[in-house]
Amino acid sequence: MLKLTSASALATLASREAIAQTVHGSISQYDIFEIPLQGPSAGNPFLDIQLKATFSLEHRTVTVDGFYDDDGSYKIRFMPDTPGEWQYTTACNHPTLNGRSGRFTCTVAHSPNHGPVSVRYGHHFGYADGTPYFPFGTTCYAWVHQGQTYEEQTLATLRQAPFNKIRMCVFPKSYAYNHNEPEFYPFPRLAGPSPTKPMGANDYSRFNPSFFAHFEKRLGELRGLNIEADLILFHPYDRWGYAAMDPEIDERYVRYVVARFSAYRNVWWSLANEFDLMKSKTRQDFDRLLHLVQQCDPYQHLRSIHYSKVMYDYASPAVTHASLQSYDFASAPAWLKTWNKPIIYDEVMYEGDLPQRWGNLSGEEMTRRFWLGIIAGCYVTHGETFLNAGGAENEDDKIWWSNGGKLSGASPERIGFLRKLLEETTTIGIEASPEPYYLNAISPSHSRQGVEAKLAPAAILYYFDFHQPAQYTFPLGDGIYQAELIDPWQMTITTVAGSFSGKATLRLTGKPFQAIRFRHT
Amino acid sequence: MLKLTSASALATLASREAIAQTVHGSISQYDIFEIPLQGPSAGNPFLDIQLKATFSLEHRTVTVDGFYDDDGSYKIRFMPDTPGEWQYTTACNHPTLNGRSGRFTCTVAHSPNHGPVSVRYGHHFGYADGTPYFPFGTTCYAWVHQGQTYEEQTLATLRQAPFNKIRMCVFPKSYAYNHNEPEFYPFPRLAGPSPTKPMGANDYSRFNPSFFAHFEKRLGELRGLNIEADLILFHPYDRWGYAAMDPEIDERYVRYVVARFSAYRNVWWSLANEFDLMKSKTRQDFDRLLHLVQQCDPYQHLRSIHYSKVMYDYASPAVTHASLQSYDFASAPAWLKTWNKPIIYDEVMYEGDLPQRWGNLSGEEMTRRFWLGIIAGCYVTHGETFLNAGGAENEDDKIWWSNGGKLSGASPERIGFLRKLLEETTTIGIEASPEPYYLNAISPSHSRQGVEAKLAPAAILYYFDFHQPAQYTFPLGDGIYQAELIDPWQMTITTVAGSFSGKATLRLTGKPFQAIRFRHT
Repeated sequence: MLKLTSASALATLASREAIAQTVHGSISQYDIFEIPLQGPSAGNPFLDIQLKATFSLEHRTVTVDGFYDDDGSYKIRFMPDTPGEWQYTTACNHPTLNGRSGRFTCTVAHSPNHGPVSVRYGHHFGYADGTPYFPFGTTCYAWVHQGQTYEEQTLATLRQAPFNKIRMCVFPKSYAYNHNEPEFYPFPRLAGPSPTKPMGANDYSRFNPSFFAHFEKRLGELRGLNIEADLILFHPYDRWGYAAMDPEIDERYVRYVVARFSAYRNVWWSLANEFDLMKSKTRQDFDRLLHLVQQCDPYQHLRSIHYSKVMYDYASPAVTHASLQSYDFASAPAWLKTWNKPIIYDEVMYEGDLPQRWGNLSGEEMTRRFWLGIIAGCYVTHGETFLNAGGAENEDDKIWWSNGGKLSGASPERIGFLRKLLEETTTIGIEASPEPYYLNAISPSHSRQGVEAKLAPAAILYYFDFHQPAQYTFPLGDGIYQAELIDPWQMTITTVAGSFSGKATLRLTGKPFQAIRFRHT
Repeated sequence: MLKLTSASALATLASREAIAQTVHGSISQYDIFEIPLQGPSAGNPFLDIQLKATFSLEHRTVTVDGFYDDDGSYKIRFMPDTPGEWQYTTACNHPTLNGRSGRFTCTVAHSPNHGPVSVRYGHHFGYADGTPYFPFGTTCYAWVHQGQTYEEQTLATLRQAPFNKIRMCVFPKSYAYNHNEPEFYPFPRLAGPSPTKPMGANDYSRFNPSFFAHFEKRLGELRGLNIEADLILFHPYDRWGYAAMDPEIDERYVRYVVARFSAYRNVWWSLANEFDLMKSKTRQDFDRLLHLVQQCDPYQHLRSIHYSKVMYDYASPAVTHASLQSYDFASAPAWLKTWNKPIIYDEVMYEGDLPQRWGNLSGEEMTRRFWLGIIAGCYVTHGETFLNAGGAENEDDKIWWSNGGKLSGASPERIGFLRKLLEETTTIGIEASPEPYYLNAISPSHSRQGVEAKLAPAAILYYFDFHQPAQYTFPLGDGIYQAELIDPWQMTITTVAGSFSGKATLRLTGKPFQAIRFRHT
């Protein structure tokens, strides 16, 4: 029988009766077209069966890997990027799954489906349909490993929050405030040595499809919220063995994850969190794994890797953008120039009240770091680390940055204000001024070409940080601008009467942490 | 007749009748003993006469230079550092002034006269009598060049202010907000080319004694307030020619200044402000001038040099301490280790509301920078730059940082609170912890030897900056401590009940910018 998978209906596909010889129907661009197949279940299909399909639209072909799911069920997923009549044919080392073919119609996507995000204009991002995308991410490393009730609370929170990206680990996490066992493990667990140790070693020769089906459900829900899933493939916070697998297991894991997840348009690949803290892997291991993802992913989703103390070489063509642990915004101009790709300050510490130095920024400081990053032409990621129960430390506390749940900090609302402000100011992003302006803060919103051609910027954004000039002379050049005083904490925008050009002197509030926006009339 | 000069009576010495063959009497340690002499006034005594005196106490001798004042009057000033019966004999290339001798009694100094400040315990300062000295300076570059009314207002302000050091220029200053002509010039001015330009070139072959007498009056008044005068010998903000004199004029100026000023116990030598902005001088010129001061000054007053962008080599033995333009407190541990001398962050920007980036810090940020400097085991200098008339920029504005006058910022009171707190916490200074403690903030107050011997510190001071942990575990080691929560802005000290030892967990306020002090019971 025929079965068509759309993005919203994917979860229903877990039903096992669907065996397609030919698939017809219609699917939107950037949604998932899935071919469900039934094949051999004897032996170890995870190791024995190599399945793929070649999709073609006129003269163009795209080859994607399929994967073994469970109980003789195989799947091939494809995210078409171009409307039209697509055809496909499978190839497999088992005759039952070889040479299957079919076709489907891909229709034009409509908002809110803007397609995947990629790099554009050098230092910035955009959706495939041309819609601007400014990453305002948050961090919930292990939220998908907290059980249904808690995970649904996280999704409810995200639905109201200002974030359009989330950093999250594929593997479960073992770290402070995150000692619970996950409901699902990525590999089957062998029987443990005793009733008190019910779980033994991992069976790395197989995957646990329930783990992945559950993970995909969450991926799809994030996609429904237009939240990019910045998937961390490896991390050091581990007690199960995932941080120290053999290279061939690493490779099999990466291939399986890419085969299953890459058709989700909201996937980004973060090869590792704090890669330099992973004692069982070398820098060369990560180079190799980055190249493997680059080789396997038919869609070339965004790719980066996050460090703790030793920065990765972000000039490498294997990464699409820098994913920093830093709050050194003064270095942004040099890094942008050196790497010539977008920079996301993915860890600038977190708003909270933990004892740990990285987990107790004030809401004001978190907000300030977002402004400093944006004004430097980069992007910043949020995290929140408040202890529950009013500040008494408890290792069983569930904390947003690791577990998700609810947000209680003061910064998210201000981050939302900044996101809205940026989105209404520019369709591309902010570029630091080529002139040594006040705090390097200038935003030509029409195009980078405009900067190079010294065109009058469509908008200019200043952020004064801890400075509080009573007045300031802005070098506005030839353009004629309207001015607005912005209070990033109070979230107010106050229009200044008149219009301004040349060297324009404005009275300011004399308060610190204020901003001003000039918009071309 | 006999004439004895004491510190407080020095100004009366300008009377010309005093010609001493022999001086008897009694003077306190670290006050000025002055020998007034009458000699030739023909020719140019500034160039022609070389006068000095050798002071001896038992087997020790100290040779100091005299100077020509005016109208045939010569002076030799001496600041004795040891009680006892001192003798002296003059030497001069003119027979009238040669071979004069005399004696005086030096008595033990009493508070508030603690003697000059010098370096001790590696990174810290102390008065000659052993009293601790923690520099909490301010900046009034050209306050002595503003006329009597304004200068007396500055002194009245300083009398109430928390500052015990002031950075000030010997030469008049020509810069934004400081365009007035001074009342006195250091060199005689030749007749100008026209009535509208009454002042012409400098007569560098002579000095203007009125300039120096006026300056010395202010030096003495600062000494009376126990304020160290951090004298800037050269600076780039000049329209009269002082920034571009020939090397031999520079040398004659330095020798004259040292001969006149060095007997003031509160003198420090700052060879230059922003030396790297002085286009007519090279780095080698400053090396040479530093060595010249080192060679001429019998008392070895503190010596440093201040830069704008290119840091001086503070490892040089010619400087006693570093005088930074920086707010990079994170580099303090490395710098302290490299230079092994005290560090004063002499410009960290100023509290104010000027348009200039360096002149519009909030009071909170100024206060924060003091705390960050102190907690790093260094010292910080204040400055204030508020526009008058409520924020309308006016080039005739008199601004504290340049002209003195009145203070209106919020930080001085908080700086005073910190100074008092430091003075009651330690008699030596704060050393950053050898352990990687929270924010590197630990203060062993008994001695550096204590740090090296890992003795329990007598006090430990933490400053949390923008961090707001709800609780924190302090590694107190073997000592038993009492704890106080400190709010640097509200200026409150709240004792925590109980005593603490080992790894002590304390609930904190959950607010940013808080401090905590532990004192050994």
